[in-house]
Amino acid sequence: MKRIAILGSTGSIGCSTLSVAESYPDRFQVVALAAGANLEAAFEQARKWRPKVISMASEPDADVLRARLKQAGLKEIEIVYGNAGTVSVATHPDADFVVSAIVGVAGLEATYEAVKAGKIVGVANKECLVAAGELITAEARRQGKPLLPIDSEHNAVHQCLRGGRMEEVERIWLTASGGPFLNTPGSQFSSITVEQALNHPTWKMGKRITIDSATLMNKGFEVIEACRLFHIPPAKVEVIVHPQSTIHSFVEFIDGSILAQFSVTDMRLPILYALTYPERIESDMRFPVQNLRHLDFCPPDMSKFPCLRLAYEAAEAGGAKTVALNAADEVAVAAFLAGDIGFDEIPRIIEDTVSASDLGHLATIAAVLEADENARRYAQELVLGIAKKTVRPGATTAV
Amino acid sequence: MKRIAILGSTGSIGCSTLSVAESYPDRFQVVALAAGANLEAAFEQARKWRPKVISMASEPDADVLRARLKQAGLKEIEIVYGNAGTVSVATHPDADFVVSAIVGVAGLEATYEAVKAGKIVGVANKECLVAAGELITAEARRQGKPLLPIDSEHNAVHQCLRGGRMEEVERIWLTASGGPFLNTPGSQFSSITVEQALNHPTWKMGKRITIDSATLMNKGFEVIEACRLFHIPPAKVEVIVHPQSTIHSFVEFIDGSILAQFSVTDMRLPILYALTYPERIESDMRFPVQNLRHLDFCPPDMSKFPCLRLAYEAAEAGGAKTVALNAADEVAVAAFLAGDIGFDEIPRIIEDTVSASDLGHLATIAAVLEADENARRYAQELVLGIAKKTVRPGATTAV
Repeated sequence: MKRIAILGSTGSIGCSTLSVAESYPDRFQVVALAAGANLEAAFEQARKWRPKVISMASEPDADVLRARLKQAGLKEIEIVYGNAGTVSVATHPDADFVVSAIVGVAGLEATYEAVKAGKIVGVANKECLVAAGELITAEARRQGKPLLPIDSEHNAVHQCLRGGRMEEVERIWLTASGGPFLNTPGSQFSSITVEQALNHPTWKMGKRITIDSATLMNKGFEVIEACRLFHIPPAKVEVIVHPQSTIHSFVEFIDGSILAQFSVTDMRLPILYALTYPERIESDMRFPVQNLRHLDFCPPDMSKFPCLRLAYEAAEAGGAKTVALNAADEVAVAAFLAGDIGFDEIPRIIEDTVSASDLGHLATIAAVLEADENARRYAQELVLGIAKKTVRPGATTAV
Repeated sequence: MKRIAILGSTGSIGCSTLSVAESYPDRFQVVALAAGANLEAAFEQARKWRPKVISMASEPDADVLRARLKQAGLKEIEIVYGNAGTVSVATHPDADFVVSAIVGVAGLEATYEAVKAGKIVGVANKECLVAAGELITAEARRQGKPLLPIDSEHNAVHQCLRGGRMEEVERIWLTASGGPFLNTPGSQFSSITVEQALNHPTWKMGKRITIDSATLMNKGFEVIEACRLFHIPPAKVEVIVHPQSTIHSFVEFIDGSILAQFSVTDMRLPILYALTYPERIESDMRFPVQNLRHLDFCPPDMSKFPCLRLAYEAAEAGGAKTVALNAADEVAVAAFLAGDIGFDEIPRIIEDTVSASDLGHLATIAAVLEADENARRYAQELVLGIAKKTVRPGATTAV
C-alpha cells in the first residue's frame, strides 16, 4: 500500500492522480491533500478520500471547510491552511509519495520540503524544476531518493533511460506538437488572437500551458526541466516537432540506438508510472497500435518561436535566469490573455526581463522566490508600458 | 578484452562482426573462426586476425588453407574442418562470446554446444531459434547465460525490454518493411519474377532472406524467434508493417506504455550492442534525427501473405512444426529462385509440408536435424511435382 500526499489536489493533475488512486484501491491510500481555493472540490475530496489532513490556501476557506466537514460527521480530518499548511501536507509523516502539482511558485517550498523529508516526489509542477531545479534535484540526490517526472515528455525520457546508463546517453530528444501555429507564417504572429492561441491541437490543458505550447516556451521549460532532472547540459537536449504527439520523447545512446516512448495522451499514464515505479501495473490505457498510420516530424523553427531560444540561453546561464524566464513568461502570458499585449510581444517581454535579471546561483528557496518576485515586477512594468500604447480586442481575464 | 569466436565468419554477419572488432581493437580479440567454404576469405581473415583456430567446411579446403598459411609463415594457427571443426570453434576455451551466424541448420549443433559450454552467444542464425529454439533457450537458462539477439528486430526488443520486467510485457510488436509486394494485389502474386522478389526496399541481404522478406515468412520466423528468445506465447507477438524500417520493433507494457527502438539500418549496431551488453559504447552509427520526417505503419495482410499465418500456426504447435516450416521454406525458396515454382506456390509447399510433419517435442539436436531432413525431403517432392508440370522463364540457380 503506497500512501500518497497530493499538492494541488483539485487541479488537473491532482484530479487525475485521485482517479488513478481510485482505480487501484488496494495499492494506494490518499493520506494528505493540499487543495487550494476550490472549497467545493476540497469538500468532496475530503468526504470521498478521508485524508488525515487537508490544506486550503486561505484561513477563512479552512474554517468553512472545517465547519462543513464537522457537519458531515467528518471531524477527524485535520484542516490546515496557507504555505505552512501545504508544507505540512508535503511532509506528512504517513506519506511515502508526494505528487507536486500546484501550479506556479506557490508549490516550490512545499515540494522542496517534501524532498528534504525523504519523500519520493512525483513532479508535475514546472516551476519546481525550471526555477528551483538545481536546489531540488541536489536535495533529492542528497536524500538518495528519486524525483519522478509526471509529464508526458520527461516521463517518456525516464522510461527510455532504463535502456542504458546516464554516461551512455548521447542526447535527449523532446518531442513538441508544434502548437497551433506550426504552419502559421511568422509575419502573422502579431495578429494572433487569444482564441486561436488557446486552440491546442493535441492536449487539453490549462490556459497558461496552452499559450506556452503555442509559443513553444513550454518546450523551452521542458528543456530546462530535462537538464535538471537528468543532470545533462542544454546542448544535449534537443527538440523535434512531432504534430501527432504520439511519441512523447526519445533518448539517443552513444552506440547509436534510440529508444522512444509512446502511449495514449492521458496524464493518468505518467502518474501511474511514477506512483508504481520501478514496477509497472496493468492499466486500461491501451494505445491502439493496429490503428497507427503516420508519424510526422520536423525541426523546430527557432526564429519563428524565439521563446525556445530564450529557454536554451537561460538554461545555459542557469540559476536566476531560469527563474526570470518563468516569471516573465507567466506575466506575459497573463497579459496576452487579458488582451494587454500581442502574441509576438510575449517573447520580447521575456527576453528583456531575463536580460535585466541577475546572474548567479540561488542557494535557498527564499532567494528563488525573491528573484521570481523581482522578475515578475520587472515584466509587469514592461507589460504596462505596452498596454498604455494599445487597446486590444478579444481579451479574457482568467488565467 | 572480450574474446570472440565467430561461426560463419565469411558471411555477411561474420564480416560485420569483424568490422566491429576492427573498430575497437582494445576491446575485442578474435580467437576462433568458422569460415565455411570461401577459402580466399578464410585465408585473408586468418592472416589479418591471427585466430588460434579456424575451421573450414571440408577437409580438402582445410588442407589447402593449412598449406597456404604455412607458406605465409602462419603455422601456429590450428586448422580444423567439418561439423567437429565448427563445434571446436564454438566451444574454444579462450572464447567468451560466440557469434552464431552460420546460415541454415549447419550452425545448429555448434551453437547448442557453445551455449552448453557456458559461452555468451549472440544469435544471428535464424534456424537456432526457429528449429531448435526450445532446446537452445532451455540450455541457456540452465547455464544462466544470456542469448543475445543479433538481428535488428529482436535486438530492438531486447533493448526495449530493459524498460520493465518480463511479467510486465503485454505484447511484442515486430515491425516489417512489408517487402517489395506490400502494394501488389494478391491476384498478381503468381506472376512475380525472381528479379522482382529480390528487390527489397530497405535492407540489402542474402537471397533466401530477401525472398523470405517478400513472402513475409521472414517476419513469421521472427515471430517464432521472439517467442523462443523472450519466452512469450505467439498470441503476444504482433507484426506491424512499417515500410521505412526505421523503428526496428517495440514492446508494449501492461501499463500502456510502449517503448520503441530505432537506429540506422546497419547490422553492426545490433552486433556492437550484443558484444558490449550490458554496456553501450560510442559508435559512429548516428541516426540523423534532424532529418526524420515521416514514419508510416499499417497492419499486415495475412490473406495476401499466408506465410505469416503459417508461422503463427507453427509457433502455436511448436516442436517439429517449426522445424518443418523452416525446412520447407528453404526448399521452396530455392525452387522459386531456380524457376521451378511460382512465388505463390511457396506458401502452398510450406503449408502442405508442415501439415504432413509430425507434431511433438524434439529432445535433441539430432532429432531436430532428422525432422529437418524429413521435411526437406517431403517439400522437395512437392516441388518436383510442380516442376514437372511447368517450365518457367527467368530462373537463377544460385541460392
